[in-house]
Amino acid sequence: MTDSNPAHSAVQKPFRRLLLTGAAGNLGQQLRGALAAWADVVRVTDIAPLGEVAAHEEASIVDLADEAAVLALLEGVDAVIHLGGISVEAPFEDLLEANIRGLYNLYSAAQKQGVKRIVYASSNHAVGFHPVTEVVDIDAPLRPDTLYGVTKCFGESLSRYYFDRFGLETVCLRIGSSFEQPKNPRMLVTFLSYRDFIELVRCSLFTNRVGHAIVYGVSDNRTKWVDNTKAAFLGFRPQDSSVEFEHLFPVSAPTADLDDPTQRFQGGAFILAGPMEPKR
Amino acid sequence: MTDSNPAHSAVQKPFRRLLLTGAAGNLGQQLRGALAAWADVVRVTDIAPLGEVAAHEEASIVDLADEAAVLALLEGVDAVIHLGGISVEAPFEDLLEANIRGLYNLYSAAQKQGVKRIVYASSNHAVGFHPVTEVVDIDAPLRPDTLYGVTKCFGESLSRYYFDRFGLETVCLRIGSSFEQPKNPRMLVTFLSYRDFIELVRCSLFTNRVGHAIVYGVSDNRTKWVDNTKAAFLGFRPQDSSVEFEHLFPVSAPTADLDDPTQRFQGGAFILAGPMEPKR
Amino acid sequence: MTDSNPAHSAVQKPFRRLLLTGAAGNLGQQLRGALAAWADVVRVTDIAPLGEVAAHEEASIVDLADEAAVLALLEGVDAVIHLGGISVEAPFEDLLEANIRGLYNLYSAAQKQGVKRIVYASSNHAVGFHPVTEVVDIDAPLRPDTLYGVTKCFGESLSRYYFDRFGLETVCLRIGSSFEQPKNPRMLVTFLSYRDFIELVRCSLFTNRVGHAIVYGVSDNRTKWVDNTKAAFLGFRPQDSSVEFEHLFPVSAPTADLDDPTQRFQGGAFILAGPMEPKR
Amino acid sequence: MTDSNPAHSAVQKPFRRLLLTGAAGNLGQQLRGALAAWADVVRVTDIAPLGEVAAHEEASIVDLADEAAVLALLEGVDAVIHLGGISVEAPFEDLLEANIRGLYNLYSAAQKQGVKRIVYASSNHAVGFHPVTEVVDIDAPLRPDTLYGVTKCFGESLSRYYFDRFGLETVCLRIGSSFEQPKNPRMLVTFLSYRDFIELVRCSLFTNRVGHAIVYGVSDNRTKWVDNTKAAFLGFRPQDSSVEFEHLFPVSAPTADLDDPTQRFQGGAFILAGPMEPKR
Amino acid sequence: MTDSNPAHSAVQKPFRRLLLTGAAGNLGQQLRGALAAWADVVRVTDIAPLGEVAAHEEASIVDLADEAAVLALLEGVDAVIHLGGISVEAPFEDLLEANIRGLYNLYSAAQKQGVKRIVYASSNHAVGFHPVTEVVDIDAPLRPDTLYGVTKCFGESLSRYYFDRFGLETVCLRIGSSFEQPKNPRMLVTFLSYRDFIELVRCSLFTNRVGHAIVYGVSDNRTKWVDNTKAAFLGFRPQDSSVEFEHLFPVSAPTADLDDPTQRFQGGAFILAGPMEPKR
Amino acid sequence: MTDSNPAHSAVQKPFRRLLLTGAAGNLGQQLRGALAAWADVVRVTDIAPLGEVAAHEEASIVDLADEAAVLALLEGVDAVIHLGGISVEAPFEDLLEANIRGLYNLYSAAQKQGVKRIVYASSNHAVGFHPVTEVVDIDAPLRPDTLYGVTKCFGESLSRYYFDRFGLETVCLRIGSSFEQPKNPRMLVTFLSYRDFIELVRCSLFTNRVGHAIVYGVSDNRTKWVDNTKAAFLGFRPQDSSVEFEHLFPVSAPTADLDDPTQRFQGGAFILAGPMEPKR
Repeated sequence: MTDSNPAHSAVQKPFRRLLLTGAAGNLGQQLRGALAAWADVVRVTDIAPLGEVAAHEEASIVDLADEAAVLALLEGVDAVIHLGGISVEAPFEDLLEANIRGLYNLYSAAQKQGVKRIVYASSNHAVGFHPVTEVVDIDAPLRPDTLYGVTKCFGESLSRYYFDRFGLETVCLRIGSSFEQPKNPRMLVTFLSYRDFIELVRCSLFTNRVGHAIVYGVSDNRTKWVDNTKAAFLGFRPQDSSVEFEHLFPVSAPTADLDDPTQRFQGGAFILAGPMEPKR
Repeated sequence: MTDSNPAHSAVQKPFRRLLLTGAAGNLGQQLRGALAAWADVVRVTDIAPLGEVAAHEEASIVDLADEAAVLALLEGVDAVIHLGGISVEAPFEDLLEANIRGLYNLYSAAQKQGVKRIVYASSNHAVGFHPVTEVVDIDAPLRPDTLYGVTKCFGESLSRYYFDRFGLETVCLRIGSSFEQPKNPRMLVTFLSYRDFIELVRCSLFTNRVGHAIVYGVSDNRTKWVDNTKAAFLGFRPQDSSVEFEHLFPVSAPTADLDDPTQRFQGGAFILAGPMEPKR
Repeated sequence: MTDSNPAHSAVQKPFRRLLLTGAAGNLGQQLRGALAAWADVVRVTDIAPLGEVAAHEEASIVDLADEAAVLALLEGVDAVIHLGGISVEAPFEDLLEANIRGLYNLYSAAQKQGVKRIVYASSNHAVGFHPVTEVVDIDAPLRPDTLYGVTKCFGESLSRYYFDRFGLETVCLRIGSSFEQPKNPRMLVTFLSYRDFIELVRCSLFTNRVGHAIVYGVSDNRTKWVDNTKAAFLGFRPQDSSVEFEHLFPVSAPTADLDDPTQRFQGGAFILAGPMEPKR
Repeated sequence: MTDSNPAHSAVQKPFRRLLLTGAAGNLGQQLRGALAAWADVVRVTDIAPLGEVAAHEEASIVDLADEAAVLALLEGVDAVIHLGGISVEAPFEDLLEANIRGLYNLYSAAQKQGVKRIVYASSNHAVGFHPVTEVVDIDAPLRPDTLYGVTKCFGESLSRYYFDRFGLETVCLRIGSSFEQPKNPRMLVTFLSYRDFIELVRCSLFTNRVGHAIVYGVSDNRTKWVDNTKAAFLGFRPQDSSVEFEHLFPVSAPTADLDDPTQRFQGGAFILAGPMEPKR
Repeated sequence: MTDSNPAHSAVQKPFRRLLLTGAAGNLGQQLRGALAAWADVVRVTDIAPLGEVAAHEEASIVDLADEAAVLALLEGVDAVIHLGGISVEAPFEDLLEANIRGLYNLYSAAQKQGVKRIVYASSNHAVGFHPVTEVVDIDAPLRPDTLYGVTKCFGESLSRYYFDRFGLETVCLRIGSSFEQPKNPRMLVTFLSYRDFIELVRCSLFTNRVGHAIVYGVSDNRTKWVDNTKAAFLGFRPQDSSVEFEHLFPVSAPTADLDDPTQRFQGGAFILAGPMEPKR
Repeated sequence: MTDSNPAHSAVQKPFRRLLLTGAAGNLGQQLRGALAAWADVVRVTDIAPLGEVAAHEEASIVDLADEAAVLALLEGVDAVIHLGGISVEAPFEDLLEANIRGLYNLYSAAQKQGVKRIVYASSNHAVGFHPVTEVVDIDAPLRPDTLYGVTKCFGESLSRYYFDRFGLETVCLRIGSSFEQPKNPRMLVTFLSYRDFIELVRCSLFTNRVGHAIVYGVSDNRTKWVDNTKAAFLGFRPQDSSVEFEHLFPVSAPTADLDDPTQRFQGGAFILAGPMEPKR
């Protein structure tokens, strides 16, 4: 079988060097394969072990809260896919280091090193306190549902500043639930297949100009809480849907308790997850 | 042939008891079959004869203007699909009894009996005085095209009140033209297939939380006057289209008379239907 | 003292005959004096005694639910100021007669008699379930806070229909709290002085063309929950303010109970007033 | 093979006489075949040679700047497809004659001759100064990217006036790039296939009432800069996409120069095309 | 009496040279006095005699349709107040020369001569086909009520292009009715006092950065059809009102004919003024 | 002179204990006098010396980054006016401690101690990258102009979370330039007099319910970049204006350099202030 994907040309790859943070995580692992076709060199980093390193990969273990290490990490990088940091509710102290200080270090270093673009894993938890009876578009007011969500709002503001001030472009991916398959009924709405996730990153990297963009990362599920109409310039067209997984969750009458916040708001169980006390 | 619809599980049906009003009418008859899979007991009611009553059905002839009868009718009901009342222009006195007093009786009884949700057959005639050169979404201003349409506006306001005041949820279905097939060129735009109608009711009943929702009931026809983007949380995705019926209506140049209100407004011939004098 | 108001010309008054319903009520009494300058004849009506009848007045006791009587009442009328009907929460049966059947009778008769315009006393209780932390404009979604509010929504829809269908113009006045002075802290926000009320009616009658208009009836109070920007074509500029009455209500810290619906919503105590059981 | 298109009935065609201007141009030639099925007579005109004239065609060479000739040209015409004039940047003097004076002559003559509708080839260059990181709908502010684009804004205003004043309907087609295939990466976004172009004209001619409508002429390409939601009453559903041509343009990293106006704005290279000096 | 206006400092005037076109017209004459304080030299031009020329003035008779003359006229000019051209409905041929060709000549010359800003006399007739029952803001769709209005839309598009393309700033003044006093009841709404007109020009010239701005030129009249909220960055605060002239127009009941277009639309009698036949 | 302010009643003050942070700063000092009338006890805190302490004041020197100290500081407090933290651009490390960690400590402690409301000094620098040719309302997208501005966005998100999650109310004051008088021409637009500042805090404390509100803190200056219409429920009506200070800045023609970011954007000189390198 021949490879008809034009990105796979052996002669010349579009990017010289991409940086992938959070490369040891769930989504990072999904992405490493795709990145091989897009860049001559893929620098992969995490605070966790990175597993087998491919020929085209440069691996390094870096704590994003380490300013000097991050500055070195960004050297020679064309663009970044930033999946690093904490992606669930956690004690504020931990979020502060990973998602606030770490993100500042990343942007500060990227600007100093002349990086052109960052694809930033934001989250639908930045708007999780919108009710499930609304459809939010990319201009909807921020309504974080956790301290974690608050740090994602911080990332969207910080990256906006770096674009307005320095022209460093960012696509904020408000990723829903990207797993092998939905794990509960709520994820039928928020599901993002791995294939669609990779396509979303591809659009975010290759669209010629993105400015500071926000886009929801969901597959073409039957029920929608989000609307990407205003982000159509990114060309993201999901190919998958959670419809094929609907049989996993037995049909039932609606839950009776209208006041249950985990049922009322898009954030689901996250609504009650925080704030968490620090681990001491 | 096996039934792969998860709602058809024989073991346990999602609802214990559903009430269907207007069960003898055109759409009521379409729905009775589907309801069998969704509830252990389906209470069917109308002022007209209900035909053959299935094993899982409870049939009763009730005039919705009869307050006490309606209170009894709602006892033990989980959710209501309200297709009852008058669905065309009629003398105000008749509309007052069926669509205003009758609807109040229904909501008052539902609240007293602890019913959780009502799926309410509103109509696109609540907004029929919008021109055919506009696309109206679910927040468009009310523009009833008949006294009948005015009573549908009343129903949307009354149900909004019962939700805000008591948490009794309602989905208002602004149904277009739901028949076997379109009967005139206008219905190519407003057509709702029976299959899509049943799917719309399914979404309205099973979406976990709907609050007070409004949604247009139209199939995926080529031409659209309405936009359900903001109702995407209901998960309604029509599967049919009037395209297959376009051959029924010979292609012609546009009508010359731009001032003909039945051509200018979405309500079509309804525009001139009222007010009707009472039958005496 | 000379009368510099141009409307007071003795030679020729602008209207031949105006009809004032609810003429025996609080606001009706305020208005009777002003109407003398605007019309040769003022027909005043109510179901309660109308007091002393001036030379230019025609008085009649009419129940608006009496279709034939209302048809006669509208004969020879240029324009109507409709303050009649029930203006507080009441059993649905009573509201049905006065505010629904009665209003239909009024519009039906007005259209048959060739009346040009109706100034309709709607109410801020048509939108009373909006929170006090929002400012609603005249396109805000209807959110009635009582069955009374639902009937005011009905009136706004019915009058819209009569305008779209027959060109019978209406100004819907969403009147706040029009009394001698505010009676509680909420009324500092909703206060409409008698002078501003009369001015609002004047604008509604004399603006050359109003179509179907909606306007909030509030004075220029310090705190605002409503925004009349889109109704500026009516020329209503309140001259009074509740500021002079602020001393009546001792300053206090905000109430502690954020969940108290009478504090959360613009409708105030009306929120809990309904539905009322019928008096039997 | 039988022709199942109902428009192809030999007995009676929907229009008696259509006028096609710019009939010798690229899109005009595409359209001449389709028009045969829609009208008994197709009057074709251009300032360039019109090639072979079919039996149902009336051909004439007319300069639109010639007022008297245009008046004669419009005689007996039901509707016009106006593709004439200049469709690229040009010296203002030339644009003035062809796109301003010529267009006025066309509308003035059409109104005098009782023409019912004009399908007007506007252009996405009327909004070409919107950035490529925005999705513009049909209400977006005008942002012409050339003097040519300014003349297209003129055409949209002039046709609006003729509709508001005389009821002469117009559909303004903001055509993107309609060629055999995209010629550069930007055209992957703006591509309109010939088949979709013809369908767009069909919708514009046959929709019963269009008022003064604006619609973007693009196929269902992956990336979108425009949104036709509010024009859905026209029933235009593109069937083609530029996806099949993506392989023509090798994938590359985004261009580095964020300030390059031809990359920043939707108009692309047109941004720098004008103003052109007159040819002397 | 001392002059406390800081603009009147004799030492140094803010502008070196301003150009005033249409200087012989009604508003031009009003402005000439004020300009003395704002610029060392005021170049005044018209096709009509300019009357007495002050010491600080440079007068020249120039036809704006004369490209070369206009290029010379703009030499050494800091900013332009463009009141020239035709300001009422006229035959298209005349409008084409004065308001289209003339305006292009002005902008083309201004760009070549390095002029920084133009204050352009647009008109409320660019939006005169909006109904009198709406309040239009500066983003309202263009609805010209005359061919004259169409040329004002052209001017707004052309100036937008010159700003987007070259950074040449423009403030489009949608002037209402600027006379000594209102001449008819409609002008009570559209009145702009001479003092407020001068203040509007002052704001347009001295606001540090205006980009491409649109603002309605009306005094603080009781009734408003327009809303300048989004233009508040210009700092225009009218000090006058037509209230003092209301006594000139006897109060009357609304006109009976709702269909009279001169009463329905903001453009008033202009609605029926065009198109005019050329004078031959 | 008698004190007619109803808040000054000696008998009973509305609040038992208010906390003022940043009490040693410019605005803190302005506010201390006013607070005496509003609370029995005013707890004042800062990291700088607090000067003379009044009888009704409790003074303490607390670093907001000290979690335990902040928890103690909030004990027994009804409401907080939070002026503490850094109010200009600073190295990120400093902002992180004062405006991010410090703010989290404040909200975390307030929630644990049962505080009802926080009046939070946000800043117009949260939206400073909007151009000076736009008027932004309280829903405008965040556009921070400095890292300082980014921390203010963080504060707005964090406080939104605490309101949605726990009902802890916040009013975010986007304060402009609050000094004795404007110090440069830009401050003529952003000026907030001390008197209006105090009134804004008064409205924020005493409005019965505020939810999570955002309001711009500017006086009634001639030129406006911001629009508080949607915050009118707070009742803030500025009494002062920068007009009286306009004479301080000599009138001049607009600056020539349109690309100067300190002239293009509302943030003014802040635009170029960051990011600052840490002081080492």
